Amino acid sequence: MPLTQISIRKGSKTETQKRTLFNEIYLSMRETIDVPEDDRFMTLTEYATEDFDFGRHYMNIARSDDLILIRLTVSNTRSADQKQALFKRIADGLVRELGVRPEDVFISLVETNPENWSFGHGIAQYAEKALPT
Amino acid sequence: MPLTQISIRKGSKTETQKRTLFNEIYLSMRETIDVPEDDRFMTLTEYATEDFDFGRHYMNIARSDDLILIRLTVSNTRSADQKQALFKRIADGLVRELGVRPEDVFISLVETNPENWSFGHGIAQYAEKALPT
Amino acid sequence: MPLTQISIRKGSKTETQKRTLFNEIYLSMRETIDVPEDDRFMTLTEYATEDFDFGRHYMNIARSDDLILIRLTVSNTRSADQKQALFKRIADGLVRELGVRPEDVFISLVETNPENWSFGHGIAQYAEKALPT
Repeated sequence: MPLTQISIRKGSKTETQKRTLFNEIYLSMRETIDVPEDDRFMTLTEYATEDFDFGRHYMNIARSDDLILIRLTVSNTRSADQKQALFKRIADGLVRELGVRPEDVFISLVETNPENWSFGHGIAQYAEKALPT
Repeated sequence: MPLTQISIRKGSKTETQKRTLFNEIYLSMRETIDVPEDDRFMTLTEYATEDFDFGRHYMNIARSDDLILIRLTVSNTRSADQKQALFKRIADGLVRELGVRPEDVFISLVETNPENWSFGHGIAQYAEKALPT
Repeated sequence: MPLTQISIRKGSKTETQKRTLFNEIYLSMRETIDVPEDDRFMTLTEYATEDFDFGRHYMNIARSDDLILIRLTVSNTRSADQKQALFKRIADGLVRELGVRPEDVFISLVETNPENWSFGHGIAQYAEKALPT
């Protein structure tokens, strides 16, 4: 169910690196917040310099043009601990597999009700599960 | 007030089909969740294969390259029943009017407070309505 | 922490105007909702006519092709008054500095928990602050 939107600078990642990026974020969700197999829905957009604005020093974190901005939408069923584990796992994975600087991993999480998802056929699959049958 | 973000594969829809897509989503919201006339704000983005990653079998739903990923942001004033009616109406409409496979309609809904919208002039119109005058 | 996504018509703003747009939104957040210095994370996307659909008269507000659609994601720590001040400040700033019509400023705000942000290093910085040390 997680929906992932990735924003990077134009030309900062190769096709292979993008593939790795998708895979690492998916694996991170699998390992920390109980995301089922094949539950991956992600888009990536590249921005020209003039269309991508970010604070290079906010919180004394030195960001570079390699900044990866990750927006996640997930159901509101995780604990604060799980979310912290997710953030750590994503950053660790991108550092290890892509050579990204840990300063360049920005994550924003938006939570929604489980009933707010339809994975096909116009059915709210997670709501259906909660209903008596 | 709904804000709609649509993601598709590059080249998978003609200009006419995009127009139909916008119209069907708008009509679905009109008919199921009390969206007023002309309240339509939507963007559509096409993604190259390397920038669009999705599970082709999650929940045993067989998705194809025609996948339409729809993100909706709406006020948090609808019942679960209304949201389920919305999902069904969108999928039915896209199947009927665009020949889309029902497996290829993915919807994610994010809800916000009514006071969180400004439709122009820097005014939070829905908050204003709630205030004593 | 605010994450800002701006949508405009293709070619409706120059590079200099985009810079002003980013700056005015940032300054508006600084002045009305206590956003810290350098806390700015924004992307801008231009849409072809066929990919950008909006109601030209919703709420009797006459929108033009210069419409600026602004999506903000912020922590859920602001009052309704602060959010109204933010909307007003953004519209006033864009009118004053860019010559935008006030009818053409659309804002949608999504709120999340403070613990839902990681600004780097895989740490949920706002959650950490709330924890005993």
